[in-house]
Amino acid sequence: MGYNTYFVDALNRLHEERRYRVFAHLERLAGRFPRAIHHTPDGPRDVIVWCSNDYLGMGQHPKVVGAMVETATRMGTGAGGTRNIAGNNHPLVLLEQELADLHGKEAGLVFTSGYVSNDAGISTIAKLLPNCLILSDALNHNSMITGVRNAGTDKVVWRHNDVEHLEDLLKKAGKERAKLIVFEGLYSMDGDVSPIGKICDLAEKYNAMTYIDEVHAVGMYGARGGGQAEQQGEMGRIDVIEATLAKAFGCLGGYIAGSHALVDAVRSYAPGFIFTTALPPAVCAAATAAIRHLKDSTWERERHQERAAKVKAVLSAAGLPVMPTDTHIVPVMVCDADKCKQATDILLEEHGIYIQPINYPTVPKGTERLRITPSPYHEDALVHALAEALVDVWERLELPRKPFNAIAAE
Amino acid sequence: MGYNTYFVDALNRLHEERRYRVFAHLERLAGRFPRAIHHTPDGPRDVIVWCSNDYLGMGQHPKVVGAMVETATRMGTGAGGTRNIAGNNHPLVLLEQELADLHGKEAGLVFTSGYVSNDAGISTIAKLLPNCLILSDALNHNSMITGVRNAGTDKVVWRHNDVEHLEDLLKKAGKERAKLIVFEGLYSMDGDVSPIGKICDLAEKYNAMTYIDEVHAVGMYGARGGGQAEQQGEMGRIDVIEATLAKAFGCLGGYIAGSHALVDAVRSYAPGFIFTTALPPAVCAAATAAIRHLKDSTWERERHQERAAKVKAVLSAAGLPVMPTDTHIVPVMVCDADKCKQATDILLEEHGIYIQPINYPTVPKGTERLRITPSPYHEDALVHALAEALVDVWERLELPRKPFNAIAAE
Repeated sequence: MGYNTYFVDALNRLHEERRYRVFAHLERLAGRFPRAIHHTPDGPRDVIVWCSNDYLGMGQHPKVVGAMVETATRMGTGAGGTRNIAGNNHPLVLLEQELADLHGKEAGLVFTSGYVSNDAGISTIAKLLPNCLILSDALNHNSMITGVRNAGTDKVVWRHNDVEHLEDLLKKAGKERAKLIVFEGLYSMDGDVSPIGKICDLAEKYNAMTYIDEVHAVGMYGARGGGQAEQQGEMGRIDVIEATLAKAFGCLGGYIAGSHALVDAVRSYAPGFIFTTALPPAVCAAATAAIRHLKDSTWERERHQERAAKVKAVLSAAGLPVMPTDTHIVPVMVCDADKCKQATDILLEEHGIYIQPINYPTVPKGTERLRITPSPYHEDALVHALAEALVDVWERLELPRKPFNAIAAE
Repeated sequence: MGYNTYFVDALNRLHEERRYRVFAHLERLAGRFPRAIHHTPDGPRDVIVWCSNDYLGMGQHPKVVGAMVETATRMGTGAGGTRNIAGNNHPLVLLEQELADLHGKEAGLVFTSGYVSNDAGISTIAKLLPNCLILSDALNHNSMITGVRNAGTDKVVWRHNDVEHLEDLLKKAGKERAKLIVFEGLYSMDGDVSPIGKICDLAEKYNAMTYIDEVHAVGMYGARGGGQAEQQGEMGRIDVIEATLAKAFGCLGGYIAGSHALVDAVRSYAPGFIFTTALPPAVCAAATAAIRHLKDSTWERERHQERAAKVKAVLSAAGLPVMPTDTHIVPVMVCDADKCKQATDILLEEHGIYIQPINYPTVPKGTERLRITPSPYHEDALVHALAEALVDVWERLELPRKPFNAIAAE
């Protein structure tokens, strides 16, 4: 038909730019995280996963798995309809109440993914405000950028975490104009956090709304797992909190939490919410079990931080360029797209260690990296094996064994 | 903060237009479909669900529930990452192979919802074709319209199922220009099907690509459940088949199937796919179990059609205005927004029957209706109870007891 060549050409462009992605074919084993099976053309092989976003291993927690199993057995697999038409299931209603409570907000609203919650949430909120100006942090996630674009309103981008720049832009917009500040609590690639209190100060000073993405922070930060906003003591000052059920809570889906009227308006106006089948009851029940457990249990959060600190210390001591972070994200800099891919290929094939290479466009060119995410279940032996494997790779690829600061200064 | 009034106002507009939606709070019971518990302020009540899109009741099938339970127990609840970063799980890989086989295509690609699959699928395909013109059926679903809009290319709308109009537009565009025809196999509100063969004839004559949404047809039509395209013997002529795992397959998620290059290009270029956590292994395994079962078993499809015919016959005999359809959708016309809502309130509160009212904007004003979806598990006693309840409602609301044709002629 002739059309196929356009798709072949599009793929060839990715190959030429070394951006074509091959997905690792994995089979996780509940009770044995971070161990998994890697399915290869030569058959299955054991592998240690060092890049999962199931940050706390809640996807294998007996309470969480048990909730899914019990609910599927009792209520079946799917929701059977959109929220409006037969799909509004009991565990989903309970989950939204749990999320509102987690963030100290009046209401919660669940979507099928964090991507959809940002797209639908930001675009719907901004559209409902007259002549809204969106102020967006420069490093916001693709899903937030999509939401900003789909809002169709004016937008300005403030330099990452630069509150002076944000203030300039707010001042320029004026107090009278409707303004929505969108930013993240914790940025996943550099592992840095945002100055939430200062942003809220500015929002109050210039009468702007605040919308925070806590996708990489909920469950892991704050006394009850409310995220960076709770950790920094600012949760009550944020208007809209968006996050995910698919990372620290180990399941699937995204959500927003906010005032009754705001959540009800998004519920009523967002096509990406209205015309989508509701999340299955078993997934909702599992997510609720994870959230409830992490509201009370601090073991996972403490062990998670302790493991992240351990990995940073061991890798730094081995002379590897670990980017310093205050969080659970451990970026090890390669700063070369080809070598980054080669490094992960060697790790996977020869050391049974799975870490996905992070290249452009996920990070800027020249800052290619291994993004390592230690969980509470990566015990010492695994950490030392990781360090040894990385040292082997660094030597074979002739990568510089020097601290991050020395590399950053180049 | 002042902003809340905008959301309150937005909700008031819906109340004024009688478009504010209240979700029925349901708890389905596996093994007892279509029976469910309706949670009300006065406590739980038994209810018969007559509007589920779990059309074949596969959400309670022992094979499907069993696959979810077994997989969750063995592999945990969530996928733990995007497809590219640690989330590409074994049951998901198998599911995509199963979908490619179902539709006789080279490859399949799974999304978190049918909404996202249409948005990402249509927009990404059209963007990859130079100067593409999208030709969209006038009654296409909201998710397809979103995909068309997000493509950012030229588009024209052809009158619903009007192949002469489609030919005019194709002729006008010319053979040389890239063209994508997007339409549905079965339209869910009127229950009518599209003339797939004629559309494919035109696509071949004018060198256009074809993209069909089979969301309301897969599992239910065709010898192996391949949808209306299989039923009409045209599956091999369609370039892209999009459908859902959340209706007849009883789970969650959406997908496309097509050539290797096309599917790989969408996989590589669609942000809504790339930046989203993969579907949980347990959901994928359950969907695969449903698809496999329905490839072989014809009992569900035959019983489904027999039940739909039975409901149409019984309601028509009772003098109720049933819109004639060739499919499993049974629209009963009310043609008044207020009375449509009142009818479903009486059915729910006094008869224990749950049917969601279908009002504008889902259907045009003046064509408000009850959309009834009989499943293989709605036995005779339930059908007769439904007819009696509807007659009671029709009398109390003084709705005309006359056949659809008499109403349509008015």
